[in-house]
Amino acid sequence: QNETDERALVKIQDGVSLQRDTLFLLNLRLRIQNRFGMIVHDQQELPEYDARVRRLRLRLDGYLLSPRIQYYVQLSFSQADQELDRSNTPQTIRDAILYYVFSEKLYMGFGQSKLPGNRQRVISSGSLQFADRSLANTTFNLDRDFGFFLYYSEKFGQQYFNLKSALTTGEGRNAQITSTGLCLTARLEWLPFGKFNNAGDFTEGDLELEKTLKLSVASGFSRNKNTNRTGGQIGFPLFERRTFTTYITDVMAKYRGWALQAEHFYRQLEDPITFGPGGEVAFVYKGQGFAGQFSKYFIPGWEVALRLATTKPDRSIKDVATRFDEYVVGITRYLRGHRVKGQFNTGYVDIYNSLGRRRDALVTFQVEFGF
Amino acid sequence: QNETDERALVKIQDGVSLQRDTLFLLNLRLRIQNRFGMIVHDQQELPEYDARVRRLRLRLDGYLLSPRIQYYVQLSFSQADQELDRSNTPQTIRDAILYYVFSEKLYMGFGQSKLPGNRQRVISSGSLQFADRSLANTTFNLDRDFGFFLYYSEKFGQQYFNLKSALTTGEGRNAQITSTGLCLTARLEWLPFGKFNNAGDFTEGDLELEKTLKLSVASGFSRNKNTNRTGGQIGFPLFERRTFTTYITDVMAKYRGWALQAEHFYRQLEDPITFGPGGEVAFVYKGQGFAGQFSKYFIPGWEVALRLATTKPDRSIKDVATRFDEYVVGITRYLRGHRVKGQFNTGYVDIYNSLGRRRDALVTFQVEFGF
Amino acid sequence: QNETDERALVKIQDGVSLQRDTLFLLNLRLRIQNRFGMIVHDQQELPEYDARVRRLRLRLDGYLLSPRIQYYVQLSFSQADQELDRSNTPQTIRDAILYYVFSEKLYMGFGQSKLPGNRQRVISSGSLQFADRSLANTTFNLDRDFGFFLYYSEKFGQQYFNLKSALTTGEGRNAQITSTGLCLTARLEWLPFGKFNNAGDFTEGDLELEKTLKLSVASGFSRNKNTNRTGGQIGFPLFERRTFTTYITDVMAKYRGWALQAEHFYRQLEDPITFGPGGEVAFVYKGQGFAGQFSKYFIPGWEVALRLATTKPDRSIKDVATRFDEYVVGITRYLRGHRVKGQFNTGYVDIYNSLGRRRDALVTFQVEFGF
Repeated sequence: QNETDERALVKIQDGVSLQRDTLFLLNLRLRIQNRFGMIVHDQQELPEYDARVRRLRLRLDGYLLSPRIQYYVQLSFSQADQELDRSNTPQTIRDAILYYVFSEKLYMGFGQSKLPGNRQRVISSGSLQFADRSLANTTFNLDRDFGFFLYYSEKFGQQYFNLKSALTTGEGRNAQITSTGLCLTARLEWLPFGKFNNAGDFTEGDLELEKTLKLSVASGFSRNKNTNRTGGQIGFPLFERRTFTTYITDVMAKYRGWALQAEHFYRQLEDPITFGPGGEVAFVYKGQGFAGQFSKYFIPGWEVALRLATTKPDRSIKDVATRFDEYVVGITRYLRGHRVKGQFNTGYVDIYNSLGRRRDALVTFQVEFGF
Repeated sequence: QNETDERALVKIQDGVSLQRDTLFLLNLRLRIQNRFGMIVHDQQELPEYDARVRRLRLRLDGYLLSPRIQYYVQLSFSQADQELDRSNTPQTIRDAILYYVFSEKLYMGFGQSKLPGNRQRVISSGSLQFADRSLANTTFNLDRDFGFFLYYSEKFGQQYFNLKSALTTGEGRNAQITSTGLCLTARLEWLPFGKFNNAGDFTEGDLELEKTLKLSVASGFSRNKNTNRTGGQIGFPLFERRTFTTYITDVMAKYRGWALQAEHFYRQLEDPITFGPGGEVAFVYKGQGFAGQFSKYFIPGWEVALRLATTKPDRSIKDVATRFDEYVVGITRYLRGHRVKGQFNTGYVDIYNSLGRRRDALVTFQVEFGF
Repeated sequence: QNETDERALVKIQDGVSLQRDTLFLLNLRLRIQNRFGMIVHDQQELPEYDARVRRLRLRLDGYLLSPRIQYYVQLSFSQADQELDRSNTPQTIRDAILYYVFSEKLYMGFGQSKLPGNRQRVISSGSLQFADRSLANTTFNLDRDFGFFLYYSEKFGQQYFNLKSALTTGEGRNAQITSTGLCLTARLEWLPFGKFNNAGDFTEGDLELEKTLKLSVASGFSRNKNTNRTGGQIGFPLFERRTFTTYITDVMAKYRGWALQAEHFYRQLEDPITFGPGGEVAFVYKGQGFAGQFSKYFIPGWEVALRLATTKPDRSIKDVATRFDEYVVGITRYLRGHRVKGQFNTGYVDIYNSLGRRRDALVTFQVEFGF
């Protein structure tokens, strides 16, 4: 109508928001994770340091034309986030997805985003209670992919059901022209005792101090057809394409500051090992994995947490695969929920491979800071 | 004078604008192109998918000190935009140019920007009516370069003339220390029937529904001295430096929803083939190219478009070069002009080289989303 | 309390500021350096061009929760800034550091930032009076690193003392898991005649026209244990780890538009040369360096400056190292302090190595533009 209609409402609450009625919303967020860690190998004299900017991300999300048409973009700039510790090709785009919201119960997405895989992977790296996700997650998680996503929720009494599914390329973030097989992922979540406060089924630790027991039990699978990477969407290149299925079951429970979460992975395929022209080996990690975390949150913002995780390679890859047993204790001081916190982790990893056993002890101090 | 003078006017219309009088303007824009395409090769059993974030860009432009001193920065983050499908060196900066506006008729630029080459290349990738530019454009366009740019406009009655010129390094975006030859580009545009509405001579399709016929005819050349890349500013490295000239003629006409555009390329040089130490070949595509598009726009926002494009290598490179014939039909649904739109393209490309003919059929669904 | 509490104050003065009371501040800044330079080699017929976007940076800084908890993030996107002229791994993050301010006199940092090394390196590349830093700086500077930083200031009468120290990984920006030795850096600055106006001890040229003589004398060292790069935090990989110490002394004086700055480097280690398996050589530049600059600033914004710089390799590396003598004259037109300026430099570099002497003459025109 007149020029004031174009004026924006600028708010600062969680990040910076620029809004114009129901026509436009942009939330801007920045997030930094700085870490100083030490790794002591039991068969090596001197320790290594893991000291660096672990994550640095810029997020832009909101809506355009109508709150039904939403966007979500996340850019990452640290070396580890860009996967430059593994390859020469930087992966700056983590998320770039458009959503259309049909109703409160149903929305779909088109673009690049996290697959509805295991809970810990779907939880933002800014909402973890340890500095890193578990090694079972590292071995079996589905990561991000490009394609179509469909989310549906239903309520029966105080019970909630969430159905999450995706049809994607199967070759992960920022793939180039990709080949013939797609990937189908589906996951069903059941919340028998009502919703978690503040979406706590997707943040670690019970910072909300749930007054009644809250529980989410979920199960799903992802079938990746003709992928060319060892982990499907992630990992090193395979020498021959493989089709495999990953089955995931996980649970999250919270009550009065106590939180328990656990997840189980099972990856199944025929013939997991591929051979290169010179006899090199690249294989899919067929087998199982388990991770469990248990924590207690104390007012005004302290938390103690314990993690156990393990991976168990299938017999068919026992000569080439590595088995991990992970034990970590974490103490976290939350200053502004998960947004600003200091984390201290210590523990060790037993690594079993064809050469025998090695134990790495780890101490990590990490600061998460963001708005 | 007092603190309120430092306060900014925040507007949201096309993007987000932060303004302080005539002293400062920053426009912030974000743009995403997500695509799900399928390519069927006639000599291959299984199709390939072209499914990815094709473009993701952040633009910052405005003025500082005075509206005469302008800046324009565009960053790109997708793999294809960063040229990571062709090399290991990411090209994040697309544009980084400073302008000084002498008068309404004359302004100059210093920095990295698009060369005044063929019309379709100068049209923003966010204002195209197909998901990609033509293969003739791919083969012969001048892309971006670094140097000095000069733009001059003159009016005689209702006729407009635009003279656009550039003196640049000739070695393209983000080159390192570059060698001896520079590149001179010039282009003259003639608009005999007045200006297009809303700068429509540089957007595809007649979304403005021009009430009278509008026409722009343009011609220009670019002489690139001692370049070391097959396309001058773009392409693979040559084994020996070459000097060549590209001649471009193009036309755009719009009337009542109908739009016609066409462009012709002619690239001329002596001795287009260079040989590497092991007999490898890298060559400049000497020859001609043509692309034509024809479209009709319907209220409230539908468009049907047809494209024909072809390239014709010169006899001197007929043993090494590939010839393309491209046929595409496109249907576009515009939701907010070119800013938010859905595109459906289908067509095929005939590819002729020394091995014979191959036909690739393509189907592409693309969403453009930006503010 | 109510929604207006979440509203931000948007100011535009130096950059764009978004503020909410003492709870939140975000300053956003953008900076571009475009350059057109020519290099004439005395033993080569044709000149080379150094024409490109030299620097393009985005800065986000401010505080969160309290003005005591500060953050500083700087991203860089040009090829040279990302070190893509030397490697395939882009280095987008320049700074990502969190500060805790204990008092006016004491604050500490955790993250990635500039080490408290030589003054010219610590001065922002946006506050230099020449287009580039000196070749002595290039050879001996400490660059950035990741770790803990501690800054302490004390005042005795009109004398100020600044003690700056850092404990870092010693392997530079964005290193991966790093090895055993850390790096300790310390520096003491003495300002006998009071503070410089507008923090002028860390900008080049006397744009503030100091009414009384201002002086800063500083000395420091950096001991880098078991580094694997030729320059410690920067440079090419070494074939064997080395431990070395760099001693730095510098001075800055300003009075009525005159500015003098000088710095001396001395790098000391045993056995500076390392050999690769095929006999290749990578070495630490053991030896000395000196750089001096002298300038006069004239109202309304002109400056003339002169630079002399030299490096002197130690005898132990005289067969492999290069010696530089640099002579440059610069004329700068400041339009808005260091933020918007045009720079013209001309001079030459004498390069002495085992092949003899070469002279490169340089002419550079550079525009710095930022807010």
